[in-house]
Amino acid sequence: MKRILLLPLLLLLLRTAFGQSPETQKIRSWRQQQEQTIINEFVSFLALPNVASDSGNIQKNADFIEKMMRDRNIGNVQLLQTGRYPPAIYGEVLTPGAKETIGFYAHYDGQPVNPAQWAEGLSPFSPELFTASLPDQGKPLPFPSSGPYNPQWRIYARGASDDKAGVIAILNAYAALTANGIKPRYNIKFLFEGEEEAGSIHLGDIFQAHSGLLRAGCWLICDGPVHQTGRKQIVFGVRGDSHIDLTVYGPRRPLHSGHYGNWANNPAMLLARLLASMKNDSGRVTIKGFYDDVKPLSAIEAKALRELPSVDDQMKEELGVASTEMKGLSLSEAINLPSLNINGFQSGNVGSQASNQIPTYATAVIDLRLVLGNDWKRQQQKVIDHITSQGWTVIDHEPTDAERKTAPLLIKVLRPAGSYNAQRTPMDLPMAGKIRAAVQSTTPDPLVLQPTMGGSLPLYLFEQYLQSPTITVPIANHDNNQHAENENIRLANLWSGIESMAAIMMMK
Amino acid sequence: MKRILLLPLLLLLLRTAFGQSPETQKIRSWRQQQEQTIINEFVSFLALPNVASDSGNIQKNADFIEKMMRDRNIGNVQLLQTGRYPPAIYGEVLTPGAKETIGFYAHYDGQPVNPAQWAEGLSPFSPELFTASLPDQGKPLPFPSSGPYNPQWRIYARGASDDKAGVIAILNAYAALTANGIKPRYNIKFLFEGEEEAGSIHLGDIFQAHSGLLRAGCWLICDGPVHQTGRKQIVFGVRGDSHIDLTVYGPRRPLHSGHYGNWANNPAMLLARLLASMKNDSGRVTIKGFYDDVKPLSAIEAKALRELPSVDDQMKEELGVASTEMKGLSLSEAINLPSLNINGFQSGNVGSQASNQIPTYATAVIDLRLVLGNDWKRQQQKVIDHITSQGWTVIDHEPTDAERKTAPLLIKVLRPAGSYNAQRTPMDLPMAGKIRAAVQSTTPDPLVLQPTMGGSLPLYLFEQYLQSPTITVPIANHDNNQHAENENIRLANLWSGIESMAAIMMMK
Repeated sequence: MKRILLLPLLLLLLRTAFGQSPETQKIRSWRQQQEQTIINEFVSFLALPNVASDSGNIQKNADFIEKMMRDRNIGNVQLLQTGRYPPAIYGEVLTPGAKETIGFYAHYDGQPVNPAQWAEGLSPFSPELFTASLPDQGKPLPFPSSGPYNPQWRIYARGASDDKAGVIAILNAYAALTANGIKPRYNIKFLFEGEEEAGSIHLGDIFQAHSGLLRAGCWLICDGPVHQTGRKQIVFGVRGDSHIDLTVYGPRRPLHSGHYGNWANNPAMLLARLLASMKNDSGRVTIKGFYDDVKPLSAIEAKALRELPSVDDQMKEELGVASTEMKGLSLSEAINLPSLNINGFQSGNVGSQASNQIPTYATAVIDLRLVLGNDWKRQQQKVIDHITSQGWTVIDHEPTDAERKTAPLLIKVLRPAGSYNAQRTPMDLPMAGKIRAAVQSTTPDPLVLQPTMGGSLPLYLFEQYLQSPTITVPIANHDNNQHAENENIRLANLWSGIESMAAIMMMK
Repeated sequence: MKRILLLPLLLLLLRTAFGQSPETQKIRSWRQQQEQTIINEFVSFLALPNVASDSGNIQKNADFIEKMMRDRNIGNVQLLQTGRYPPAIYGEVLTPGAKETIGFYAHYDGQPVNPAQWAEGLSPFSPELFTASLPDQGKPLPFPSSGPYNPQWRIYARGASDDKAGVIAILNAYAALTANGIKPRYNIKFLFEGEEEAGSIHLGDIFQAHSGLLRAGCWLICDGPVHQTGRKQIVFGVRGDSHIDLTVYGPRRPLHSGHYGNWANNPAMLLARLLASMKNDSGRVTIKGFYDDVKPLSAIEAKALRELPSVDDQMKEELGVASTEMKGLSLSEAINLPSLNINGFQSGNVGSQASNQIPTYATAVIDLRLVLGNDWKRQQQKVIDHITSQGWTVIDHEPTDAERKTAPLLIKVLRPAGSYNAQRTPMDLPMAGKIRAAVQSTTPDPLVLQPTMGGSLPLYLFEQYLQSPTITVPIANHDNNQHAENENIRLANLWSGIESMAAIMMMK
């Protein structure tokens, strides 16, 4: 009797002391023993270039994932593919008697890379270990042949956090369960997409073709960063995303800026004036109707938003900025509105390559983030209507001679594939409570509950084709340079991510 | 007696028939025999990379020119050099009994290159022969091992027109004189600069150190294009030139445009807004006092300006543009005003490299062209005052943490070396009349007389240090893509340039 009482007491004490459940301790012990193996595999995975359009390398990534899944005795492993587009890799673990199914999703493709912009000594697909982040004066060090790994160390590579870390966390969480003889209570499905950063253009086709296989009570999305406070978060929605590609035309050939400066229109100036017309001093988009259509937050979402820890001062300090764009709005408030962002612009040359010319064109890529209520086609059209209202003739091809001759202001507007709308899962969904409890069991710090994250994922496809809600549990460090040069993951976040995923796989 | 009368009559008839003097016919015959040799030498010259900062290759260019001059028995050949900066190459031909000296100037360095922007199959320092210009569907063809050369053919390479063509025209004009046993009546001096496209930063030092050697009654500048009508022109002035390099700062690290879009300031948008604030709809610069200081044209200059052939319609057609920048002004009028031109801007990535980020910086290079009355320091300051008036904190270095923390809008403004003011030589200078007559003797078409060209040359240095006026006789085709990708020279222009230079060397 005493022993029976003592054991729960001891467990409770342990949990109070360390803030984690005994199951999490088991997962952690396994990981500590396996660090070298996990890192070796992760580094080999990161060394495979993973831009979605690079089909040869994408296939190598898919093969690599397939092997990782087979090594872990995951069943029914198969590549789900539409034409020659990047395959999604599926696998499952069926639990006898289980009534519910939970799916685990991550993506293995990464954003396009411009190697020239990466820090000296870094290359997107040559993973490197650093003692800390670059802004924190991290120094490179060779990968040790056997641990220990300091959890503050970081691996730099494209996909290190977005989202190969998700694949690695999910598959090692399952490995940790089996190594500890822990049986999940749910059926578990795995899906690793290879086209997310290209807008998940064929994910809908894959869902349609395999809707039975992919059915689940809930899909758990492992992507994105934890909260800026370092606390783990559960995210119930994503913004939608859409792009517009603008090219403004100047003279047919580049002109000497002396001989023609003042007379020939400069496309860089024309584009600057057009872009400038889209925002005002207080960071509001001035395009007509841009903020219409926004669906208000529910009471429970609005409450969650109010309860979010403020990170504005921390982020301003960390990012070295004294002001923000939408004056008067916090970061949490700002991401609950649609946005218009210049991903990049270019015309002529700059720096040591600058020459005294009037360039022939100027180009910019804009991304539009959408919130619930926005429709991506409507939102794009608002931008195009604005451009037209500024006197521009909008075309969707290189200008013909006739167009050049008649249109004083000529702009090519392209709408790349891959747009999708925002999605939000109700925060009071029963499965949400279980996932919250599971993730909470891995950490003494209270979870952050986000009605939506600022980033985008094609989660509407899960609703539309699989009738499945989604809940996102991000694991990466927030300062991971996701989508840009010098992408990285802090090892502590990968370790902790494995624990989060394992806890969800073990939930009751 | 009859024979004495007949000969001038015959010469007059010949000249009327072909529009060129007998001397020009001699020069032309020599050139026709020498085409293969001239082209071979020119192509070897163009194959030497010639960006002023590339000191190793610049030295090879200087050595090449020195050899060309020695091969032509030009005397006192020497390299004039300040420190390790690009040398100017000097040489002279002293004419016994000559009372006057005329100098011939060209430059051998070229604008910086971005090989990626050149047309497929073209590389800045691999000269290629084409049947016509690229916009006219010119096709590549191998350099023949012996002529004939179609005068419509073009050579594509950096420096092909700006300004290695000037060096080649001057040196072959002199070679044609000596081959025909023609003695110049003037002392002739030669100077080939290697730092013009970098702003002639050390030309003043060279002039000061060698002012005796370089003294001349007039310096003849062979640079720039002939008139857009194809007529030869004499140019009496140049615009000044000055640059400003702007870098606007966003977050310290690139941010995911979803997670931070709306909240973090986007440096590309901030820079677009700043640039847009500098011009209005009718193409006028809105910077306070920008058009102050402009010295009005003299009566003779104003008359020359009125008499210039209009090329606006031709150029709009040729360049494929339906509108121009300064509404209501002709090209000739527009280049008689100071200008502000964006040479290039860049932020983040575009096209297939675009990624969903908020970039860390945006940068632009602006060039300011100046007219008589403008002072480059004052003109730069007007721009900087404007930037400040828009709420920006102007710094001249990468921002410190403290600056980032306190300045809501932070911009680095650099003023690269190489600025200089405009210059104009009086159109009624006696030497001008002789040069006009000499150039007119080479062509049946009336010359175009330009009070100023739109481009810039450091001609004020000749006035300041050598007390020499300058007169510019350009030779390149106007559609030469000077300063940009796909620079080229039409052979007819090179041939005709040799005739112009020779005529000036032969003038009475």
